[in-house]
Amino acid sequence: MKIIVDAFGGDNAPLEIIRGAVDAYHEYGVEIILTGREDVIRSVSAENGISLDNITIVHADSVISNDEAGSDIIKKKSDSSMAVGLKLLSDGGGDAFVSAGNSGALCVGATLIVKRIKGIKRPGFAPVMPNINGYFMLLDSGANVECKPQMLQQFGIMGSVYMNKVMGVSNPRVGLANVGTEEHKGDELRHEAYALLKDSPVNFIGNVEGRDIPLDGCDVVVCDGFTGNMILKTYEGTAMALMKRIKGVFTKSLKTKLAAAIVMPEMKELKKSVDYNEVGGAPILGCAKPVFKAHGSANAKTIKNAIRVTKEYVENDVIASISAALSELKASDTP
Amino acid sequence: MKIIVDAFGGDNAPLEIIRGAVDAYHEYGVEIILTGREDVIRSVSAENGISLDNITIVHADSVISNDEAGSDIIKKKSDSSMAVGLKLLSDGGGDAFVSAGNSGALCVGATLIVKRIKGIKRPGFAPVMPNINGYFMLLDSGANVECKPQMLQQFGIMGSVYMNKVMGVSNPRVGLANVGTEEHKGDELRHEAYALLKDSPVNFIGNVEGRDIPLDGCDVVVCDGFTGNMILKTYEGTAMALMKRIKGVFTKSLKTKLAAAIVMPEMKELKKSVDYNEVGGAPILGCAKPVFKAHGSANAKTIKNAIRVTKEYVENDVIASISAALSELKASDTP
Repeated sequence: MKIIVDAFGGDNAPLEIIRGAVDAYHEYGVEIILTGREDVIRSVSAENGISLDNITIVHADSVISNDEAGSDIIKKKSDSSMAVGLKLLSDGGGDAFVSAGNSGALCVGATLIVKRIKGIKRPGFAPVMPNINGYFMLLDSGANVECKPQMLQQFGIMGSVYMNKVMGVSNPRVGLANVGTEEHKGDELRHEAYALLKDSPVNFIGNVEGRDIPLDGCDVVVCDGFTGNMILKTYEGTAMALMKRIKGVFTKSLKTKLAAAIVMPEMKELKKSVDYNEVGGAPILGCAKPVFKAHGSANAKTIKNAIRVTKEYVENDVIASISAALSELKASDTP
Repeated sequence: MKIIVDAFGGDNAPLEIIRGAVDAYHEYGVEIILTGREDVIRSVSAENGISLDNITIVHADSVISNDEAGSDIIKKKSDSSMAVGLKLLSDGGGDAFVSAGNSGALCVGATLIVKRIKGIKRPGFAPVMPNINGYFMLLDSGANVECKPQMLQQFGIMGSVYMNKVMGVSNPRVGLANVGTEEHKGDELRHEAYALLKDSPVNFIGNVEGRDIPLDGCDVVVCDGFTGNMILKTYEGTAMALMKRIKGVFTKSLKTKLAAAIVMPEMKELKKSVDYNEVGGAPILGCAKPVFKAHGSANAKTIKNAIRVTKEYVENDVIASISAALSELKASDTP
């Protein structure tokens, strides 16, 4: 299996990306193709004692930064490490693509360069996040600010397949993010999406409120990209604020520092379990080939984990299963 | 000042409500009018040694429960403790109304029985919530699932006045909840609301992302009721999940229990600072008279605090200031 990795995406590129990709090569036995400026990849690797033996490099002149518009990937930045990687994937030069770069550009590029699964209206940005018992998927988390009901239905189907095939959740519970649990809650979009999801080949458990999402209310949270982005980032901000406050408690005095020392291993364990770097990121679900977004602050471990998850994404043939689920929809519902 | 209190609203009604209201009478010197079944109020008070001296009771036959539709308050439950209290407020029988009951019913009742401030399109449900440094207001948090741009503009103005007059924040920073900080981010509603807020008599700081809300990104978060409800409840759920996990860390072994004992006072302080019961709840902003929603799980302390905040709401004449701010809007923007 060949995994294409954007060596210049993310805050810690290229060193941490290269290191993570090379580690994944050794640990998971996948072939690695790095995209980006070949001279820089070679010099950074040499400086840091990283061997590039058996690693392929495909040169790309530029980088698309986080400040640039996502749409720039098509024309202005068609020579970027991200665009070159997506083109390579589309042309059959690899089995999957991983990037920690500009999320918007990756969504646009995945949709327009790699193209969509037949029948899928719009791909969704689908991070896997920790909840109190394990993990849940939140989609769409920002690729589509405005959505139609059928898009939400497809998000539910795709998320269900992914959580089952890659995350090993049997019969994933699919919930529609809404302002109340009763069927009549929410706006027109929610009403129509509810009706479609009820009639889909997924384990639809109805509406799920924001409060229940981190408390393991379901395995797949379905929403439009505006709502998903607000949920995702409110979740992150709340966790960050609380962890900062707790750190404040522990560093208040000599006495509390002693307590901190006692619970340090358990707190590290907790921090690890709510840590993005462990889960690795978000697939762009709905693309014709696997495209995976690693967290922007990805370090070598994050990238290695992202490649491990992406390997399972490929091996378990998520895309074929999504196609099969779509064809299960009744003719009247078929896109 | 006469504060009308719904003795039968909330999970701990009527005992905790009565106790909190009587405590507020003694502590803050406000007159209290309790609404609800007089026989029950008298017997519960007697059984629990609460003196009702100088407390007025206005009888109401029924209660509107949390399971009932908000609109039921108008006809089916017009004899409820909430409806009777709102009617009394509207008729001039008191200066403000406090309830821990059905939020939806309180929003509907406040709008239709108490009526709106002249020029206000729709009242907003506006909880004050803790952030890393203090408090912020989130409105609308669920009264209006669908909003027009002008409603968001008015939420910004009302929130700014309240945070200044009641919470003592000078020149409150008003932010528009959005999927990115750049002006062009979000949907049509966000674009139009952004333009209106920029042109309003508030300290508009632009868009604010979910991540920045708990991290003190602004003092007033403006959004439609669907988004606000998702933010509010995701925030609550994330904090609950994390606190549960931390409790798990502390109770893991004898050793960690020792650490817990050491940091107990600081952890209690932290828990208190993220506790709803301290802030007391949410005004329904935009009503012609002060209506205040206490948290559904309100205990006596919550109710006492809610009455204290409501007293300041009345004393600082928030409603007159909102009217004044509305009239400051240019003629072209005036509703």
